[in-house]
Amino acid sequence: MQYSFASRAQALLSSPLRSIRELAKRDSFISLAEELPAEELFPLPSLAEAASSVLNADRRSLQYGEAEGYGPLREWLSRDWSRRKKLNMSPEQILLTTGTQQALDLLIRGYVDPGDSVLVENPTSPGLLQVLRLQGAHIIPVEGDCNGILPDSLETLIEANHPKLLLAAPNFTNPTGVLWSLERRKEVLRLCEAHDVLIVEDDSVGDLYFPQGGISPPQLPSLISLEEKQGDHVLYVGSFSKTVAPALRTGWAVGNRQIIEMMTAIKQMADWQSSLLNQRLLHHLLDSKHFNYDEHILMLNREYGTRLKLMVELLKRNAWKDAAYKVPSGGMFLWVTLPAGLNGDALLRGSLLKGVGFLPGSMCSPGDEANESIRLNFTHPGRDELLLGMNLISEAVMEFTARS
Amino acid sequence: MQYSFASRAQALLSSPLRSIRELAKRDSFISLAEELPAEELFPLPSLAEAASSVLNADRRSLQYGEAEGYGPLREWLSRDWSRRKKLNMSPEQILLTTGTQQALDLLIRGYVDPGDSVLVENPTSPGLLQVLRLQGAHIIPVEGDCNGILPDSLETLIEANHPKLLLAAPNFTNPTGVLWSLERRKEVLRLCEAHDVLIVEDDSVGDLYFPQGGISPPQLPSLISLEEKQGDHVLYVGSFSKTVAPALRTGWAVGNRQIIEMMTAIKQMADWQSSLLNQRLLHHLLDSKHFNYDEHILMLNREYGTRLKLMVELLKRNAWKDAAYKVPSGGMFLWVTLPAGLNGDALLRGSLLKGVGFLPGSMCSPGDEANESIRLNFTHPGRDELLLGMNLISEAVMEFTARS
Repeated sequence: MQYSFASRAQALLSSPLRSIRELAKRDSFISLAEELPAEELFPLPSLAEAASSVLNADRRSLQYGEAEGYGPLREWLSRDWSRRKKLNMSPEQILLTTGTQQALDLLIRGYVDPGDSVLVENPTSPGLLQVLRLQGAHIIPVEGDCNGILPDSLETLIEANHPKLLLAAPNFTNPTGVLWSLERRKEVLRLCEAHDVLIVEDDSVGDLYFPQGGISPPQLPSLISLEEKQGDHVLYVGSFSKTVAPALRTGWAVGNRQIIEMMTAIKQMADWQSSLLNQRLLHHLLDSKHFNYDEHILMLNREYGTRLKLMVELLKRNAWKDAAYKVPSGGMFLWVTLPAGLNGDALLRGSLLKGVGFLPGSMCSPGDEANESIRLNFTHPGRDELLLGMNLISEAVMEFTARS
Repeated sequence: MQYSFASRAQALLSSPLRSIRELAKRDSFISLAEELPAEELFPLPSLAEAASSVLNADRRSLQYGEAEGYGPLREWLSRDWSRRKKLNMSPEQILLTTGTQQALDLLIRGYVDPGDSVLVENPTSPGLLQVLRLQGAHIIPVEGDCNGILPDSLETLIEANHPKLLLAAPNFTNPTGVLWSLERRKEVLRLCEAHDVLIVEDDSVGDLYFPQGGISPPQLPSLISLEEKQGDHVLYVGSFSKTVAPALRTGWAVGNRQIIEMMTAIKQMADWQSSLLNQRLLHHLLDSKHFNYDEHILMLNREYGTRLKLMVELLKRNAWKDAAYKVPSGGMFLWVTLPAGLNGDALLRGSLLKGVGFLPGSMCSPGDEANESIRLNFTHPGRDELLLGMNLISEAVMEFTARS
């Protein structure tokens, strides 16, 4: 039969990310496109122990759970944030989701009507742009610099468009890796409070702060922790995908009770709840005396910091001499602006033929401002893969620059 | 701040099911409202063995997976359906979801624009009505009898409304437990094929066929298996929640590749993918020589059949003498039409005070046709709970009928 899809669903089908993913299934293919953590760093023995304990302790770990998620894990998060992040939110203000992506999708489904204005960083993550497009939002990019989005631009856009939301990731913005300065955080928060714009603060990679000269830097406060009434103007989202393991599919949204209740109702309608079994495994792991979450994160940061250094060394080669980038102090990505005249999509086509992929900047912006940039992931590829992958991309760059 | 939710999201917040669930968290509360399987029947030792094997075998079981779901589990499903259900669909035509509910939500998000007409059985499941309302669908109920929906009504409604979809559960419709006759299945399929209406066939409880006089009845063919070109006009959805365990949150949609690809794109946007770990656990279990899925389902059906018999015995008491019901031959629910003048919502309020809940019919219909009926679940409560719960509801019925 002739199918008649919903009007906005069509756009999703043509995503170029899907074809990179198709290629990435080949064994020999190297992908620097994804947002994957390193599987060799997963706490596997501790999780195997947790699985055995949880499954043997209580049959109800296999039953349906509550839509808002496993209570003891929400309590653990509430305590952990108060200990580590000066964030004081009660378990009733937390909804557990299937990763950060679902937290964003639920909020946008419940908060944005088609045509509503929504502010995003520019560039921003492709996954976020997709959710906004399917919901029919009017997407407005806000300019930024190496300290975060620009308050003047933000104010002008707020006054002109009366947006409902600002979506931002002050800790290592995806894709640029920018870490917002403290001053910028305060200014953006003040402006959004003054104009009643709800901020969705994506802190998915906020714990990936790399040591500098062997010392871990102090973390900058999140926007939500800077609020006088925490959670009033900021919804804070994140997940355990980068710090424990993605297959547990456990993320969260935390904020004002009204918003959390609305998101919980939509969550229940969308899939009843995320896996209670996975939430209990995670809680058992985090609560165990045999696993130290802080030390685990430190270990990840040492290793990811080393991989980033290797990538930066490889970018010193001749092929990249006219490229521009700023080395991030954390996160998962290096954002590279290509030599003038070289387009990210064209470079991707050349690189795919060589068996390597990355994310082209064109996918990260509603306009064409990011077309000459690319996003490179340094957390997933091991050192050999990283070396080979970067060599192949360098070759592709050389071929293009030699031709022009 | 003053929050400004999306216009259609407001309706979800007022669901009375949420207050029943709130009460059901009390330890002494007995709920016959839910759609829960019996946790004492979960294959716990086999799943514990699967967890240990999967976690020790391969670190990638904790990594992100593919949006469409774990390949070997899709292959297993394809083989199982061809063996048990005369359904021949390739693994590429299968998308794994977070339960049946997500399969319905993804399809409706991708196929239905606000204002599009959609046909549903009357009564139908509350979860389905919520998804359709959030999407802004024009919901049109089709009348049925004890053999399924009525072809004449269906044809009239199709001609008058040109609906995009028919959502139906021919095997033990939720909430009525009706099993469509073979003839009715063929007629409905023929009409939808003739008018290019896509059928979404929900077979969530289709394996729960109870033995009659000790013998398992032959299963009636699903709509999709009756199609000449299987999957052309029917999308088939279901899950392992009732036959293995809900916390694995694993369901599926299977149908035409175009539809599956669209749903996969939306799935990726909504939550990237469901838990690869859970899908691998399930695959390991189903593929294991130590677990026999067919025998496990037979065991569930013997036990659930016994629980249903007990409930039917309890309905023979005086309180229910003017109630009407038809004993289903499978599924999870008994649908009872109350004595004339007694309203399901009012009876629920009286019952909640006594510490017992059920689903009032008002939640199962877009109109008020089901207001004098209630849905009772017999799979989750153990025999003692079932006895006590039914006693308490009977008391509430007696109090109402004595007053009138």
